[in-house]
Amino acid sequence: MSSPLTYKLIHQDKKTGARLGEITTPHGTFQTPMFMPVGTQASVKTLAPEELKEMGAGVILANTYHLWQRPGPEIVKEAGGLHKFMNWDQAILTDSGGFQVFSLAQMRDIKEEGVTFKSHISGAKMFLSPEKAIGIENDLGPDIMMSLDECPPYFSDFEYLQKSVARTSRWAERGLKAHRNPDTQALFGIVQGGPHEELRRQSAQDLVSLDFPGYSIGGLSVGESKEEMNRMLEFTTPLLPQNKPRYLMGVGSPDALIDGVIRGIDMFDCVLPTRIARNGTVMTSHGRLVVKNAKYAHDFTPMDPECDCYACRNYTRAYIRHLIKADETFGIRLTSYHNVYFLLNLMKKVRAAIMNDELLEFRADFFEKYGYNDSSRDF
Amino acid sequence: MSSPLTYKLIHQDKKTGARLGEITTPHGTFQTPMFMPVGTQASVKTLAPEELKEMGAGVILANTYHLWQRPGPEIVKEAGGLHKFMNWDQAILTDSGGFQVFSLAQMRDIKEEGVTFKSHISGAKMFLSPEKAIGIENDLGPDIMMSLDECPPYFSDFEYLQKSVARTSRWAERGLKAHRNPDTQALFGIVQGGPHEELRRQSAQDLVSLDFPGYSIGGLSVGESKEEMNRMLEFTTPLLPQNKPRYLMGVGSPDALIDGVIRGIDMFDCVLPTRIARNGTVMTSHGRLVVKNAKYAHDFTPMDPECDCYACRNYTRAYIRHLIKADETFGIRLTSYHNVYFLLNLMKKVRAAIMNDELLEFRADFFEKYGYNDSSRDF
Repeated sequence: MSSPLTYKLIHQDKKTGARLGEITTPHGTFQTPMFMPVGTQASVKTLAPEELKEMGAGVILANTYHLWQRPGPEIVKEAGGLHKFMNWDQAILTDSGGFQVFSLAQMRDIKEEGVTFKSHISGAKMFLSPEKAIGIENDLGPDIMMSLDECPPYFSDFEYLQKSVARTSRWAERGLKAHRNPDTQALFGIVQGGPHEELRRQSAQDLVSLDFPGYSIGGLSVGESKEEMNRMLEFTTPLLPQNKPRYLMGVGSPDALIDGVIRGIDMFDCVLPTRIARNGTVMTSHGRLVVKNAKYAHDFTPMDPECDCYACRNYTRAYIRHLIKADETFGIRLTSYHNVYFLLNLMKKVRAAIMNDELLEFRADFFEKYGYNDSSRDF
Repeated sequence: MSSPLTYKLIHQDKKTGARLGEITTPHGTFQTPMFMPVGTQASVKTLAPEELKEMGAGVILANTYHLWQRPGPEIVKEAGGLHKFMNWDQAILTDSGGFQVFSLAQMRDIKEEGVTFKSHISGAKMFLSPEKAIGIENDLGPDIMMSLDECPPYFSDFEYLQKSVARTSRWAERGLKAHRNPDTQALFGIVQGGPHEELRRQSAQDLVSLDFPGYSIGGLSVGESKEEMNRMLEFTTPLLPQNKPRYLMGVGSPDALIDGVIRGIDMFDCVLPTRIARNGTVMTSHGRLVVKNAKYAHDFTPMDPECDCYACRNYTRAYIRHLIKADETFGIRLTSYHNVYFLLNLMKKVRAAIMNDELLEFRADFFEKYGYNDSSRDF
């Protein structure tokens, strides 16, 4: 069977080993490291596909759990798959639904067979198994799909984590067997293991032995410190094959993106840019800015004077503040546009820095300017 | 003094006298009859200026009352006026704020000097006089501005309406005197008079004697029947000069637009297209369609198969229904885009029909297809 996904390593940063690469999917090629905007319900909140394209997003994410609930995979399948349904002709990645089952749903009951839970929308009792998750993802039709994993709290009891990791490996194998479209959809395995090197190693070994076309690292960015996350990445990425992409799930703060790339990560996703945008907060070259604050009422400069995005080229802080205070949707369109652009553009700069073997210098400059070295600032 | 606005009559429909014309403002020229999308708070809800341009909107409306409340005229003035503030380089029209004072605000006290009322946002006691309204509009800087008028209920007591109309004429004169920028902003007078021909005639005579660059017809589409509105238009437009534009305020349903044009109206505005869009209702060649209804869950056709707008070219009813049910902003972007386009495109067809002396035939075909002749349908 031929893999629907290929990873090409273009260059490694001489000092850190960070990877500049290229991933080719049935819906186009994108460079890595890449940040993937999240379109939970088949829409990156407030944005049009054309806007995402003009920002340089070559791949977006959609959520299996949410689309399973609404509109239902049968409707997406009937539409011809997610790409046609949402008018996006570039790459799409879906998660397995597991993370939402473990974070959003109520009354979970986890057994070997799968998870029983109550829908957070309808309240109905539902059941998700590895085979069911893969079946839904096959119906949705993304280019890249995830195995069903359990995502337990980071500092769970060791014995529980050990059992959970072993079950996640068995679930990954079951999913692989159930996968109906291995020639057109690339299924990734997800490395779990909490804070334990021993369990992360076991998880990686189990999954690598199943020869997935790519590997995700899950169970991080769930409340542990950034130092702790970086420690686990340093340990885990070397366990994964050089010729496959590595995806760190749920990470989107600028520092964590850069530090993840330094530790060998190729792909990231996070709702952060659109979520904070809806609260009137934007990322700028000089750190976060709460554009809806009163102090910007008379500020006729762009959100980020160093940014060349559509929103920053055309609109002022004063106008955007007004729109957000007045509950005008166009305000959060502009903050969302800017924030997604900011992260896509950050990754573009990161890729250039890798190409020039200057990633550590780029990190130092970026951290200083963004304010990460200023202990009085809160991120 | 040279007028900042010129109206050029291009052609009159041979059977109805409906006018095809052209209005030139300091920010460009647009053809009439024209529907003006409403950007109440300096944003046409959910839409970007570029989107309005690609639809062919040459003029939009903003609301003085709302902008007075938020962000305040001083901020818009400091930004360099509404055009710069909201990044719209074509024509802008503002109302006087009077309509909102009479419909939204509480505890109104109307005196010769002006109106005292409580802000519907802050609850603060505020005062609006003809001079104050013009002062705010001068600060906002639209190309076309309105005189402060009183807009009493349509079927008010005759004596009250008589006094009100006389006061509105005095207010129009006071506004004209207070106007600081007659060379760059065209001030319109507003004809009132409720259902009484005698009062409409008096109002029109008063205002025409003041030689405004254009005239609005107010106090219609406020609850009276469409037959009644058409009767008043038939009576009123002949009282207005041929060489000036005529603007029917607050009208946006397709039938009323066509019937207004037939009675000599050049300009219209209404929140209807964006308001119903937010409720998941769209206008189509075959009448209104509630796209969020369950029956469209599996419907993979466009909102209006005969429409060539961005939304109809790229998205299906099933997708848009899903977005609206899932509270995704992009859903109401698409319905808003389509509805505004629908009315702009309707007016384009109306202009072509006038040019070909076929407006009555166009009306008959449109009414039949839209369903206006079907008494079982509710509009």
